[in-house]
Amino acid sequence: MLVSQKRIVVEEGHCGPSGFVYSPQFTRWFDACTTSLLKSAGLPLPVLLKEHGVVGIPLVKVEVQFFLPSLCGDELLAESTVTRFGKKSFVIRHRLSKRGVLAVEGSETRVCAVRVPDDPQRIQSRPLPADLVERLSVSRTVVASL
Amino acid sequence: MLVSQKRIVVEEGHCGPSGFVYSPQFTRWFDACTTSLLKSAGLPLPVLLKEHGVVGIPLVKVEVQFFLPSLCGDELLAESTVTRFGKKSFVIRHRLSKRGVLAVEGSETRVCAVRVPDDPQRIQSRPLPADLVERLSVSRTVVASL
Amino acid sequence: MLVSQKRIVVEEGHCGPSGFVYSPQFTRWFDACTTSLLKSAGLPLPVLLKEHGVVGIPLVKVEVQFFLPSLCGDELLAESTVTRFGKKSFVIRHRLSKRGVLAVEGSETRVCAVRVPDDPQRIQSRPLPADLVERLSVSRTVVASL
Amino acid sequence: MLVSQKRIVVEEGHCGPSGFVYSPQFTRWFDACTTSLLKSAGLPLPVLLKEHGVVGIPLVKVEVQFFLPSLCGDELLAESTVTRFGKKSFVIRHRLSKRGVLAVEGSETRVCAVRVPDDPQRIQSRPLPADLVERLSVSRTVVASL
Repeated sequence: MLVSQKRIVVEEGHCGPSGFVYSPQFTRWFDACTTSLLKSAGLPLPVLLKEHGVVGIPLVKVEVQFFLPSLCGDELLAESTVTRFGKKSFVIRHRLSKRGVLAVEGSETRVCAVRVPDDPQRIQSRPLPADLVERLSVSRTVVASL
Repeated sequence: MLVSQKRIVVEEGHCGPSGFVYSPQFTRWFDACTTSLLKSAGLPLPVLLKEHGVVGIPLVKVEVQFFLPSLCGDELLAESTVTRFGKKSFVIRHRLSKRGVLAVEGSETRVCAVRVPDDPQRIQSRPLPADLVERLSVSRTVVASL
Repeated sequence: MLVSQKRIVVEEGHCGPSGFVYSPQFTRWFDACTTSLLKSAGLPLPVLLKEHGVVGIPLVKVEVQFFLPSLCGDELLAESTVTRFGKKSFVIRHRLSKRGVLAVEGSETRVCAVRVPDDPQRIQSRPLPADLVERLSVSRTVVASL
Repeated sequence: MLVSQKRIVVEEGHCGPSGFVYSPQFTRWFDACTTSLLKSAGLPLPVLLKEHGVVGIPLVKVEVQFFLPSLCGDELLAESTVTRFGKKSFVIRHRLSKRGVLAVEGSETRVCAVRVPDDPQRIQSRPLPADLVERLSVSRTVVASL
């Protein structure tokens, strides 16, 4: 599977009054890591949206486990890869480590959403585009640019 | 168990370019709901921190499942309650519904953290304070004020 | 002029590692206060967007001055009102006070944006809708619901 | 004066339902740019806090002007520099451009805060540390690492 690596530097704005990263920040980083993974796969989100009539790749589930707290100034290395393809959904695993030690691990289950033809306020999932699956299945590690 | 209800109105700043709520926002709301639950229990976080030498109640795990998308202007009703007490951790379940239909459900597993005496940069969990458990176990539904 | 009041309770997620509110949070609250002001005026943003072909009321300028720091648990009262109407722009002043003392004051200059007909990726401002001006000019104070 | 350059890539999570960057995001970027400027000056915030008993460099004022909307995927170049030193405050100007065209410009007025000795819940400003002024006054342009 394709692995996308992304460097994250913890800024003051990511942290809460405890001094540690405010935990919802990690689901933001997961989202950004998925964006990077798609870019690393050569299928950036705007292209995916344009070429497949997709309005987004919404989450159906997200899980995060916290092992080590992170502080302002910490440098994290995120590694993101797909661990499962369903017919209409896929699971992306994100591992964030700090100086080689796993700090946070989690997964996102996402679908490709299209608008419901009769009711454009609603969305529904569609089968995964073949090239999305293909491109994310390539055995390679890519360092995501900023 | 104590159930804390909280009204949430979706604002523009909660939504992403798809028009729907940006999903990491839900982990922020979960956090705010837990704050409300503690307040409803008569043990607001600042008091908990002060009376028990706790520096925070960090997440060790968070899970979110998405059933219905939410839009700007939507009104959500969140219901939060503890579903499990461990020795050093507890699980809070959050259910957010939209006009009576479940939109998002998830859980947070949290611990009470204290600083490690020899290394104040690090934190560790401590046994749950008895009054925290007691107050969250009362069978009652409280509508959280803003 | 119409004055819209909004109660804000400072949550942990609003605060930074200093323990005080992370200052960019105030521009988020300003945005939410403007949403409340429009709602108090009987012209909520979704209606404004729908009835006038407007895609948004983007900021052209925002200013914030900080007088008192705010902490987790603090209760702020925001008062928002228009202080100037131009042909294509209007200025909303926001004052946030804490127990009667001014904590933060600022202003937003906003326009009503429509898509450029020939290039929908770009937006341009349009003259302010007459009913927007009229409704915001009513001399009344409204307590915004959540 | 020292100029710190920082590359910013607009992600989905930075954007609102209009598709454009949610404007409060810019005050977050300003904050991150100031962090980078201090780091480029060889006086990163944690060092400043440690060596001068400072608890933070809170904003007393922030101003932002918006010239061009920014979209998901856009690459912005931020240039940050001090434009004025007072006795107890300093002004940092941030210019964010998109393909060479100014998109957003603004300034932050900040102070160095210390806790009030008799009342540690309150903070007050102190005269600017001499080495802060010196290091930010060096005539040089630094490309900030991530």
